[in-house]
Amino acid sequence: MSNGYNRPDISAYRMRFSQIATMMRLPLAATAEGLDIAFFGVPFDAGTYIRPGARLGPAQIREMSRFLRNSNPATLVQPFELCQVADIGDAPVNTMNTERTLQEITDFFAEVARQGALPLALGGDHTIPYLALEGLRAGGVLKQSVGFIQFDADADVLTSESDVFDGLEVNHGTFARLAIERGLVDPKRSIQLGLRGSQYSPDANRFAADAGVRMIYQHEFDEMGLAAAIKEIKRVTAGGPVYLTVDVDGLDPSICPGTGYPEPGGFTMREMQAMLRGLRGMEIIGGDVCEVAPPYDPSGLTALNAAHLLFEMLCLAAESVAARKGRQR
Amino acid sequence: MSNGYNRPDISAYRMRFSQIATMMRLPLAATAEGLDIAFFGVPFDAGTYIRPGARLGPAQIREMSRFLRNSNPATLVQPFELCQVADIGDAPVNTMNTERTLQEITDFFAEVARQGALPLALGGDHTIPYLALEGLRAGGVLKQSVGFIQFDADADVLTSESDVFDGLEVNHGTFARLAIERGLVDPKRSIQLGLRGSQYSPDANRFAADAGVRMIYQHEFDEMGLAAAIKEIKRVTAGGPVYLTVDVDGLDPSICPGTGYPEPGGFTMREMQAMLRGLRGMEIIGGDVCEVAPPYDPSGLTALNAAHLLFEMLCLAAESVAARKGRQR
Amino acid sequence: MSNGYNRPDISAYRMRFSQIATMMRLPLAATAEGLDIAFFGVPFDAGTYIRPGARLGPAQIREMSRFLRNSNPATLVQPFELCQVADIGDAPVNTMNTERTLQEITDFFAEVARQGALPLALGGDHTIPYLALEGLRAGGVLKQSVGFIQFDADADVLTSESDVFDGLEVNHGTFARLAIERGLVDPKRSIQLGLRGSQYSPDANRFAADAGVRMIYQHEFDEMGLAAAIKEIKRVTAGGPVYLTVDVDGLDPSICPGTGYPEPGGFTMREMQAMLRGLRGMEIIGGDVCEVAPPYDPSGLTALNAAHLLFEMLCLAAESVAARKGRQR
Amino acid sequence: MSNGYNRPDISAYRMRFSQIATMMRLPLAATAEGLDIAFFGVPFDAGTYIRPGARLGPAQIREMSRFLRNSNPATLVQPFELCQVADIGDAPVNTMNTERTLQEITDFFAEVARQGALPLALGGDHTIPYLALEGLRAGGVLKQSVGFIQFDADADVLTSESDVFDGLEVNHGTFARLAIERGLVDPKRSIQLGLRGSQYSPDANRFAADAGVRMIYQHEFDEMGLAAAIKEIKRVTAGGPVYLTVDVDGLDPSICPGTGYPEPGGFTMREMQAMLRGLRGMEIIGGDVCEVAPPYDPSGLTALNAAHLLFEMLCLAAESVAARKGRQR
Amino acid sequence: MSNGYNRPDISAYRMRFSQIATMMRLPLAATAEGLDIAFFGVPFDAGTYIRPGARLGPAQIREMSRFLRNSNPATLVQPFELCQVADIGDAPVNTMNTERTLQEITDFFAEVARQGALPLALGGDHTIPYLALEGLRAGGVLKQSVGFIQFDADADVLTSESDVFDGLEVNHGTFARLAIERGLVDPKRSIQLGLRGSQYSPDANRFAADAGVRMIYQHEFDEMGLAAAIKEIKRVTAGGPVYLTVDVDGLDPSICPGTGYPEPGGFTMREMQAMLRGLRGMEIIGGDVCEVAPPYDPSGLTALNAAHLLFEMLCLAAESVAARKGRQR
Amino acid sequence: MSNGYNRPDISAYRMRFSQIATMMRLPLAATAEGLDIAFFGVPFDAGTYIRPGARLGPAQIREMSRFLRNSNPATLVQPFELCQVADIGDAPVNTMNTERTLQEITDFFAEVARQGALPLALGGDHTIPYLALEGLRAGGVLKQSVGFIQFDADADVLTSESDVFDGLEVNHGTFARLAIERGLVDPKRSIQLGLRGSQYSPDANRFAADAGVRMIYQHEFDEMGLAAAIKEIKRVTAGGPVYLTVDVDGLDPSICPGTGYPEPGGFTMREMQAMLRGLRGMEIIGGDVCEVAPPYDPSGLTALNAAHLLFEMLCLAAESVAARKGRQR
Repeated sequence: MSNGYNRPDISAYRMRFSQIATMMRLPLAATAEGLDIAFFGVPFDAGTYIRPGARLGPAQIREMSRFLRNSNPATLVQPFELCQVADIGDAPVNTMNTERTLQEITDFFAEVARQGALPLALGGDHTIPYLALEGLRAGGVLKQSVGFIQFDADADVLTSESDVFDGLEVNHGTFARLAIERGLVDPKRSIQLGLRGSQYSPDANRFAADAGVRMIYQHEFDEMGLAAAIKEIKRVTAGGPVYLTVDVDGLDPSICPGTGYPEPGGFTMREMQAMLRGLRGMEIIGGDVCEVAPPYDPSGLTALNAAHLLFEMLCLAAESVAARKGRQR
Repeated sequence: MSNGYNRPDISAYRMRFSQIATMMRLPLAATAEGLDIAFFGVPFDAGTYIRPGARLGPAQIREMSRFLRNSNPATLVQPFELCQVADIGDAPVNTMNTERTLQEITDFFAEVARQGALPLALGGDHTIPYLALEGLRAGGVLKQSVGFIQFDADADVLTSESDVFDGLEVNHGTFARLAIERGLVDPKRSIQLGLRGSQYSPDANRFAADAGVRMIYQHEFDEMGLAAAIKEIKRVTAGGPVYLTVDVDGLDPSICPGTGYPEPGGFTMREMQAMLRGLRGMEIIGGDVCEVAPPYDPSGLTALNAAHLLFEMLCLAAESVAARKGRQR
Repeated sequence: MSNGYNRPDISAYRMRFSQIATMMRLPLAATAEGLDIAFFGVPFDAGTYIRPGARLGPAQIREMSRFLRNSNPATLVQPFELCQVADIGDAPVNTMNTERTLQEITDFFAEVARQGALPLALGGDHTIPYLALEGLRAGGVLKQSVGFIQFDADADVLTSESDVFDGLEVNHGTFARLAIERGLVDPKRSIQLGLRGSQYSPDANRFAADAGVRMIYQHEFDEMGLAAAIKEIKRVTAGGPVYLTVDVDGLDPSICPGTGYPEPGGFTMREMQAMLRGLRGMEIIGGDVCEVAPPYDPSGLTALNAAHLLFEMLCLAAESVAARKGRQR
Repeated sequence: MSNGYNRPDISAYRMRFSQIATMMRLPLAATAEGLDIAFFGVPFDAGTYIRPGARLGPAQIREMSRFLRNSNPATLVQPFELCQVADIGDAPVNTMNTERTLQEITDFFAEVARQGALPLALGGDHTIPYLALEGLRAGGVLKQSVGFIQFDADADVLTSESDVFDGLEVNHGTFARLAIERGLVDPKRSIQLGLRGSQYSPDANRFAADAGVRMIYQHEFDEMGLAAAIKEIKRVTAGGPVYLTVDVDGLDPSICPGTGYPEPGGFTMREMQAMLRGLRGMEIIGGDVCEVAPPYDPSGLTALNAAHLLFEMLCLAAESVAARKGRQR
Repeated sequence: MSNGYNRPDISAYRMRFSQIATMMRLPLAATAEGLDIAFFGVPFDAGTYIRPGARLGPAQIREMSRFLRNSNPATLVQPFELCQVADIGDAPVNTMNTERTLQEITDFFAEVARQGALPLALGGDHTIPYLALEGLRAGGVLKQSVGFIQFDADADVLTSESDVFDGLEVNHGTFARLAIERGLVDPKRSIQLGLRGSQYSPDANRFAADAGVRMIYQHEFDEMGLAAAIKEIKRVTAGGPVYLTVDVDGLDPSICPGTGYPEPGGFTMREMQAMLRGLRGMEIIGGDVCEVAPPYDPSGLTALNAAHLLFEMLCLAAESVAARKGRQR
Repeated sequence: MSNGYNRPDISAYRMRFSQIATMMRLPLAATAEGLDIAFFGVPFDAGTYIRPGARLGPAQIREMSRFLRNSNPATLVQPFELCQVADIGDAPVNTMNTERTLQEITDFFAEVARQGALPLALGGDHTIPYLALEGLRAGGVLKQSVGFIQFDADADVLTSESDVFDGLEVNHGTFARLAIERGLVDPKRSIQLGLRGSQYSPDANRFAADAGVRMIYQHEFDEMGLAAAIKEIKRVTAGGPVYLTVDVDGLDPSICPGTGYPEPGGFTMREMQAMLRGLRGMEIIGGDVCEVAPPYDPSGLTALNAAHLLFEMLCLAAESVAARKGRQR
């Protein structure tokens, strides 16, 4: 511990069920100043069409993150030996003012970026990656469109001419389209995995396909297999920084019952962990795990899985930051 | 059954767990035309500050209303012998456009009023009574400010100068203030029961007190007793038509766990049923039961209680309508 | 323990969460031979109209009865100092043969009666008291129609001309009518408490009223009060032996969510305990607690309450048996 | 939408959580007249040995079917472009008269068949496919014994000489034997998948084996693999029409906790979806998904999966009907 | 806010579901230095006989305390205008070393006392009040035996000659006896309310009775009524400082399902709130709410009620501290 | 049944939901005398660091074991044709005296061993296998260090110099280290499968690795595949008797939510069943399934899976015993 980095407090008389629930029981910091990586919550779900509740996600993810320890069992990465990490609380949210909240969240990401920390966000609904990317651009980190890896049952590229919504364009069914249209994401360096579920029409995801996003539907994944999928992720996103996003409904509902739109036939955690571990060596600029909706899963299983996926992102991000800063263990 | 009125279908081979879940398993009508009383859902919860989910309330109330039968055990009122009643589905709601949705709901109430039916709404959050009253005014039924009976833990009279919200003024914490300010409700003929819970400040409910609303806090109710409370309701609201609203958080959380803001120390169902039954003889112009949030109560107990309270409202409304129309059993 | 009677084993290394779940962790006996009082399950629910599951009741009641100890806190009765009590397992039930099962259960009660033990049954649906009474008659214990105390939301006196059923006449909606019609119960010495809930019609319970049963609806109970109700029970049932039955839906759904037909506005446990304790001195010939349906209450609260009510019945029965047999403590 | 076929209403102000819960939010039709395919519920569970509750299945499947949209993500089939589909409510059921109910359900299937619609049934327990086949024969659709595809943990071929039941022969443990014995199903063109679980004896499923049914136990499936299993289904059932049935306990209990007899070690939804999608091109005469027992799964996950499997059946049936009627998209 | 005291942050963009869950969302302080009142958790349950889980109580109480606001609705007390209050985290606990943990907890209370803050503890099992009192004595606050108010189903005065335990004497069934025997509590100024439940024997609570503790069993409370009970509490405890403890099983299990030993027939929250509010004017030296066991109540209702009771204690304590320090509002 | 061995009673009028819940509804025996194999519970969880509750495991496993029948579907082994099996209740446990309880449990295993029965234990936390092995040594069965097969997320080889605990050395995080250090287990003939989850450090499991235990982490298992893993188990453990232990957290949390420390990314039941079935032919000396913690899974899914794994162990053990005793079917 001589490097002065924060670590989860796991000493004998501060057992993991005790003390305040920050992410992984890390220290709570007022801002991202001095951090390499900042965990924070985005308790926002006004971008949700059907079943709300993701605004309550960050609290439950923090609670279930008590089970996490320091070191990755497969990659042996020890993120707290590489980087300074803390929980900086939640982005500002007001359920009575969606427009301003969207701006406040974006500004929050921007401020984290300006303070030099890589953001790892606890969602909140799946509008968040769009706000993250806008914030990273505003904060000077995202200088051109980036690579994008999305684990999700839905492509989230609804177009405004669709008859299924009227109103707020920035929402959890449109974020990926907006991120592409507004130049945040390079569709040619983007990949979506876990796509499935009945569609409004066979053309529902056409925007993404036309834009050049590599879309791997679950039935295609079943045919190609896990190893090939990992290779494909690397091939598509090669050549620059990437942003990671997980909508927990990419997982099978048996392991993510606590989400707004559970979609049968999803990934197992073993697949998801293997895919994330397969991304080692990438330049990561940020990440999020979204759509944990605790009211539908009081047991916390969904949030536990989300916490584990954030830990995998942390390991990736820590290696990426350490590499960039020339640190090594 | 010679009067041609609808009744729940309880014949031997259509048992109550079977068939489509309309309210009380009544026929589903396309509009309120020809009805005396119309049940409908308002699956709206964008007016909710803290825990969302009331948008899912109508479906669960309908499901749990399967347990209801035809005749009131205490008053012996048989609503289906007095009035034509049906379920007319749900008011239009779009979670991506709150402004327009508020208007659509108001218009829906107005249309029901124009079609001559008394509305009994299945909430949705507690913004709804405000929209109901606006709709009743637009529909020509509410010609001047009316009496108002509100069972609720919160007075819902937040003022805009409060620092706790910023944005949408029409919400579930302001509706009662707006209804008074905009002349829909006569505060002198209004009463609130069940008030309790920690407050932002001792002045938080000052608007209502200043306006002349009779406010009975739960600790006062405990002192005065049930019989005196019923008398007080009648005394305050005498002299004209009244609108009834129940926020289920007026009930104790042990019987309404499924609500956004459970507030310990509330009414029992026996008290609530007794109070509603005590209102016989009033001129009712509409009613609602709000804030059933199913995600927090998958067992359906909250919705079951809500369905029973709607049945009590139905009995009151049926007698009121029958009296107005000169019918008798 | 010099009297040789069974007691729940509560010694230091046989803690109450351990060992096999018999009723109150009493010894499991093969038959009722040598017992004064026999607990047994009747895992039958084929008499249920709407929501099934009471067949699973006995197992959950036994499991939750682990919390019970030896001595009554209010009456100070110590049943295991007065009587030999054991759990004798379950009556025979086959879900594919209702007719024969009805006979088997009746025979089981008869056999217990013949063996000289007072039956306390863990339901099972509310067809059971009818079978119990038939069995007690067959077993020679019930020599003429007896007094009857029923705590229940429903009077269970459906008549066959009703249009709501067709088929099996012996069921949980008819048992009380049958018990009267077939001379098992003396309606003049019978009382029903807790009656409430919407009815098929104002005449739905007419059979009982016409027969002379004392029916106390819940709204009447609220007016007369607990003390008067206890007096009334004693007044009505005076003059001979009585049988006790509790349908757990007599309790409020907040404390009996695990039942097939929850009916808002019921008794509290304090009321129910007080009423049962008020029956001391009666000659008891048997009792049951029915309609615990575990699938609707995995927490076991309903079964816990049922176990406590059976304990109150046990205390009453033990005093009654001891008095009859000239024992005293 | 020029073809005039029904579609789920997914327009902007009729969001999927709103309105009455019919299957997939399709229109509710009074009969199957004019339909190509009819969804309906069979809320029957009197054929259940152990844990009841499947009578409540249709309501929960309908509720969870709100999540379904129009188009298949893997096969791109759009059933509502090919066929007229509606929900026609529930078959008649009376829990007090099992014999007559069996007949009423059979008659209901027969009537649907006569009206020219293909039945897709929402169970109810796994007695239903037998009643469906009897009804299809009575309705003139099933002219000779048909092919049969059964996904199930149990073979459901209990013989009457077994000592485990006494009484009603038509039940959820015997239906497949009866369907073969009575000439409804051709055992040589029948296949059962997902078989597993401890057995009464090694001979318990002997009837099916002797009759020539292709039985694939789960441990055999693990050895042969998914692709081979799909081929085997096609090979066995080739040469004529087939009926499809899914007992949800064919799925692993992690995704079907809400069933009467959960059996560890079952199919994943990805396997089940792949197998159903592999059946394209078959002549389908009807199908069902059974044994959803909501009391054991208030979360609705089981019913959600059941709704998805019914959607896969709908896509298969729509192609089959369209092919037979010479329609194409 | 000019007095510089902490308050829950309820501004518009820091909504109550957001940010880290400290008690009432108060600031987290490292120690009790400078505080008038310190909230902290004691995640200890090694003193539990039967069902464990109270070690997880503090986290859930904090989470559910999000619903609390600033001002008491009945007494109008505003604790944050009177005192400096914060959450100081949890006392040290190690599940592998009960002896040392008992000492560490005692030391923690002592240190809080030395730092001049009044302790309000979030339990943890009901061994805690004993440790609190020992700590207050060690910290110099408790100079002689104090008055004691205990709301509880059990008297917790098990004697070591009992055959139900062997081993650790300091546990949740003995704490009240130890507190009396060791001179911490003056039995003549002590009162226990809510006592009920079957007992090991009629003598089980004899120690307390003999010592002079005023014991009000629940059936006695029902007879004397709420107002008389409040008077009795005041009468008994008059004449000096008092310590308050609530075992949540004093409440009825319908409102405290999340506890290790639910005991039917307990207090309502209205009664409990009224009793606590009735204690205004007493000199309070500390308090706790114990036995919240979240595993048995994932809904959080029990913890919500516990948080509300802690708020009532806070209001009492704030007035007591302010009076002692000569502050006024 | 001529061999006189016990069998689960599955006759027609003793349906599996009825009667007392012993393991598999086998007879309850007072001791292991005369048995070949003894099932018993060890309701102990004082060795648990984080979330308690496993003391309640045996009761729930017994309850869920009602679903089990007589014959293995894959191996066709019929254990009750080979051996005399019964449930002998629970080992002695006192939650107030851990030291003595550890000795009592050890003695209980020793006594079972002396009586000639093979123990199959229903846990209880994962301290139990250590106590089992000590007991088997004391009882004369374990004459030298044995082979060991452990399915588990954690290696359970924490060393005392770790800073995460202080105190009781014999606990569920150290048992495997102790078993090796004390010569009970031969590390060269030991294998651990399912290892995963974030670690305290990369060296956390070093003790086991250094000792020569074959450790298969889950990501390695994913690479080598199921068939190779089965071979590896056989290779490593060849050459003598083996003891089997399953910590249910070896399973994925979707199928074992009811455990103290759920660890995402675990085995499926199909994998676990295949691995256990792959062990046929081994000489088994005992086994256990641990860490079922019912409070976190009221549905019983975890316990159901545990019961099935115990059935697989029973089949292995029955063949092993029969082979040793020269019996055959």
